Amino acid sequence: MHQSPPKSLDLKPFELVLGAANIISAASLSTATFPTAVQIPAVLRPGSVSEVQECLRLAASHDIRLHPISTGMNWGYGSAVPYADSTLLLDLGRMNRILDYDDRLGYVVIEPGVTQQQLYDFLQEKGGRYWMDATGSSPSCSIIGNTLERGFGHTPLSDHFANSCSYQVVLATGEVIETGLGALTGSASRNVFRWGVGPFIDGLFSQSRLGVVTRMTIWLMPAPEAFLPFFFRCGAPDALPPLVETLRDLRMNGILQSAVHIVNDYRVLAGIQQYPWQETHGETPLGPLVLAVLRKRDGFGAWNGSGALYGPKKMVRTMQKLLSRTLRPKVDSLNFASERLLSFAKSHSAILSPFAGMNLDKTLGLIAPSIDLLRGRPSNHALRSIYWRKKRPIPGLPDPNSDRCGLLWSAPVCSADGESAAKLDQIVRDTLLPGGFEPFVSFTLATPRALICVVSIIYDRDIIGEDDRAMTVNRTLNERLLAAGFPPYRLGVQSMEFWDKHQKLKALSNLETSLDPKVLLSPGHYGLS
Amino acid sequence: MHQSPPKSLDLKPFELVLGAANIISAASLSTATFPTAVQIPAVLRPGSVSEVQECLRLAASHDIRLHPISTGMNWGYGSAVPYADSTLLLDLGRMNRILDYDDRLGYVVIEPGVTQQQLYDFLQEKGGRYWMDATGSSPSCSIIGNTLERGFGHTPLSDHFANSCSYQVVLATGEVIETGLGALTGSASRNVFRWGVGPFIDGLFSQSRLGVVTRMTIWLMPAPEAFLPFFFRCGAPDALPPLVETLRDLRMNGILQSAVHIVNDYRVLAGIQQYPWQETHGETPLGPLVLAVLRKRDGFGAWNGSGALYGPKKMVRTMQKLLSRTLRPKVDSLNFASERLLSFAKSHSAILSPFAGMNLDKTLGLIAPSIDLLRGRPSNHALRSIYWRKKRPIPGLPDPNSDRCGLLWSAPVCSADGESAAKLDQIVRDTLLPGGFEPFVSFTLATPRALICVVSIIYDRDIIGEDDRAMTVNRTLNERLLAAGFPPYRLGVQSMEFWDKHQKLKALSNLETSLDPKVLLSPGHYGLS
Repeated sequence: MHQSPPKSLDLKPFELVLGAANIISAASLSTATFPTAVQIPAVLRPGSVSEVQECLRLAASHDIRLHPISTGMNWGYGSAVPYADSTLLLDLGRMNRILDYDDRLGYVVIEPGVTQQQLYDFLQEKGGRYWMDATGSSPSCSIIGNTLERGFGHTPLSDHFANSCSYQVVLATGEVIETGLGALTGSASRNVFRWGVGPFIDGLFSQSRLGVVTRMTIWLMPAPEAFLPFFFRCGAPDALPPLVETLRDLRMNGILQSAVHIVNDYRVLAGIQQYPWQETHGETPLGPLVLAVLRKRDGFGAWNGSGALYGPKKMVRTMQKLLSRTLRPKVDSLNFASERLLSFAKSHSAILSPFAGMNLDKTLGLIAPSIDLLRGRPSNHALRSIYWRKKRPIPGLPDPNSDRCGLLWSAPVCSADGESAAKLDQIVRDTLLPGGFEPFVSFTLATPRALICVVSIIYDRDIIGEDDRAMTVNRTLNERLLAAGFPPYRLGVQSMEFWDKHQKLKALSNLETSLDPKVLLSPGHYGLS
Repeated sequence: MHQSPPKSLDLKPFELVLGAANIISAASLSTATFPTAVQIPAVLRPGSVSEVQECLRLAASHDIRLHPISTGMNWGYGSAVPYADSTLLLDLGRMNRILDYDDRLGYVVIEPGVTQQQLYDFLQEKGGRYWMDATGSSPSCSIIGNTLERGFGHTPLSDHFANSCSYQVVLATGEVIETGLGALTGSASRNVFRWGVGPFIDGLFSQSRLGVVTRMTIWLMPAPEAFLPFFFRCGAPDALPPLVETLRDLRMNGILQSAVHIVNDYRVLAGIQQYPWQETHGETPLGPLVLAVLRKRDGFGAWNGSGALYGPKKMVRTMQKLLSRTLRPKVDSLNFASERLLSFAKSHSAILSPFAGMNLDKTLGLIAPSIDLLRGRPSNHALRSIYWRKKRPIPGLPDPNSDRCGLLWSAPVCSADGESAAKLDQIVRDTLLPGGFEPFVSFTLATPRALICVVSIIYDRDIIGEDDRAMTVNRTLNERLLAAGFPPYRLGVQSMEFWDKHQKLKALSNLETSLDPKVLLSPGHYGLS
């Protein structure tokens, strides 16, 4: 990474501000988990808000485009790669301070470089009185980066954007603004109330390119007196619709108070092992027949769910009873995993397997990281599944970009009704399998009435032709989904073009004329160009 | 209202679009519950989106300013009165259709003229499967109007803005845009997921003047199996800090899942009766000594709270136990009011009074409307308290504007910690009492970590000099609150000047250059001019 950048671009003015050591080559950062066309000339690494301001002012006066990243681990959506060519990365990773922590009101104030692991460790050091939410992505992912992409996790704080406020933003002009009540006061009010006074503008800086967010308040939850993860599975593929309806009603009625996650059999398998080359005699994609055998062998269902109950012990006990009564008739198995039970199962898996009807060694390996996420503890586990089609073992330190793992994510939104979920799932199967890829599907009940579906196309970039095929299938998928009424909740750099096809979205783009008139921040990002 | 508008302004072009019957005189609408300086030349009453578009296009081509209102009942914040002079009202009241209702996903799609009472009646007609949230304002208030001002109510859906999505907005240019996923699809997804894809811009049209919202999706809650209101009171004025801390913790821990409302003794009294002219020998303001006597006579506390538990019966029972155990030691009385108990008490108030230690006839009169609000049923009750200082009885059909009731609201935000709440309360007392007004204070635990305080200055506009005095005290109050770190959550037309004094807010104003370059929509509203 520390090679010097290409000479064509004059980076001298930036050197004066940041020092030569903080302007680095970016060759490796031009690689994502799918083909990308742009080259990144260099990476600027400001260490403070005033350095960010200086970088933006210099960029404006020299007509240089910048793409801000926090840690650049936007896996499946383009990693650190910008949409437009000749764009410098503005890497905010050095700004990684936790600036404030309030242990009565439950919030932290952080900079963009603060990672999931860093905040988790910090809260543990403070005695673990508060929990954060974590995504299934790397522990070294930025919290602010994920929040601005409106990512989600698994606890009651699942909706990251909804649980953030009071941004400090450097505009393309170099001007610093504060959003929310931060524009008015330095008191605690700024950290506890999101909307501010006057127009609420935080949203303008999410899934956007209209400013560089350099500070944010993140809300936490008190460590609950009781935490009870639960896992369920359904053998039959057509169990999905009633399952979705039941979970929606549980959430609408307040029995469930956090996101529930349902994954199909393909997703479970990729979490347990790499592609079964032997069983399939080297053929891809993995068809339903072999999958059914593996499902039986390892004891997972066509649909497999996880969630947790949080709260005072007595409430969790009551919720457990109500959940049990309502959900059990809709599933083939439902297990509540107290931590005590889990540690017992770990040491007795061989004995328990026949009773539980599943391969406990394997499924415990899957359940343990799920439990981590359900309590907001980041885990590297999900990253491992990106090596699904790789013919060599998963490395100890996964690096999907340089290991040439293929991963393309599409993330359609679907109303939480059974018919819609089944229809969406069918479109994914009908598009991916004939295209040569396994239909990896997860549905997250992200709100009481909405499912966010994440579809992964996972492949091996070292196999010639696969990149093209994957990109084509991904594009077809997005078009079919939208035509059927399932728009994306988020776009990757591979899908930004999507925007141009939808004239109705164009109206939003006018906003940018006042905020970044020269279009220097991440041109094309979310269609704002 | 149906007099013809002044001749100076050429309204002919609007007549061609709307018909003469839909352009009416607005003399009475220039009156609010405090002095206002502007005259409204006329009111335009479009009946459809395309008529709104036409009005905006005509306004742009003739440089005519418009101020959109839904029903114009922004009591205490300026009613229907715009900030700038020579502004026509764009009254959206004729657009009052409920366009969609989904009884599985729990939402309605409504137009701006839909009132609280109208939606309530609609949901009742549909079998009462879903509840809405209501504010304490008039049943004939617009739901969209309140949502755009980011008003709040008392149920788990208390935060109206947070429970709305998918806006249709007519921009100042006459262009129609759809926010959220409405920009992409007509499917149910648009009504269930709020953030859309790309920058989230709904917030730009709240507390703002950047567009005319002509349609909105509003989320509902399923009618809970159990609904249990509770009421508590504390005799001692210094009970507030521990009370706030306890309620915050109850909400942070998930035992309480909705807004809790705490009002001081002055607020209770104004809900029960008009000013005690006799007891005070005609002197104002009502001092602490007489107040203490009345408090004792009617059995209310220095602080009086209300809230409710919602959910499955078993959960509500568990929450009741936990709430009881935690809250009871902090208060002098805590009562859970099942509807059965309430109707019993109503018919036996004379017998029960000595036991309950309060004047049940009076307090039941106060509790019944509270219970209405806690279940999302709009009520006219709160409006009655605006007649507090009037020397004639409250009319059957209150009209605070034309009855010359004085009401000025300030609504500071405060973090949910005891010290801050007590400090805020002290500032209010120290400012209002010496200024000649009673310090009417309510604190709403609007989120787990934030209190919204509503301070009312209530007076009689018929008494010479009172208007000026009230405006001065209101201004002083806002300044003192902000200096102490308590910024407003909302501004009235009386406080828009506030904006100009705070340069940091000015940055937001740039946004409007792209959305309303000629500054024709509500100039000055929330400082955007």
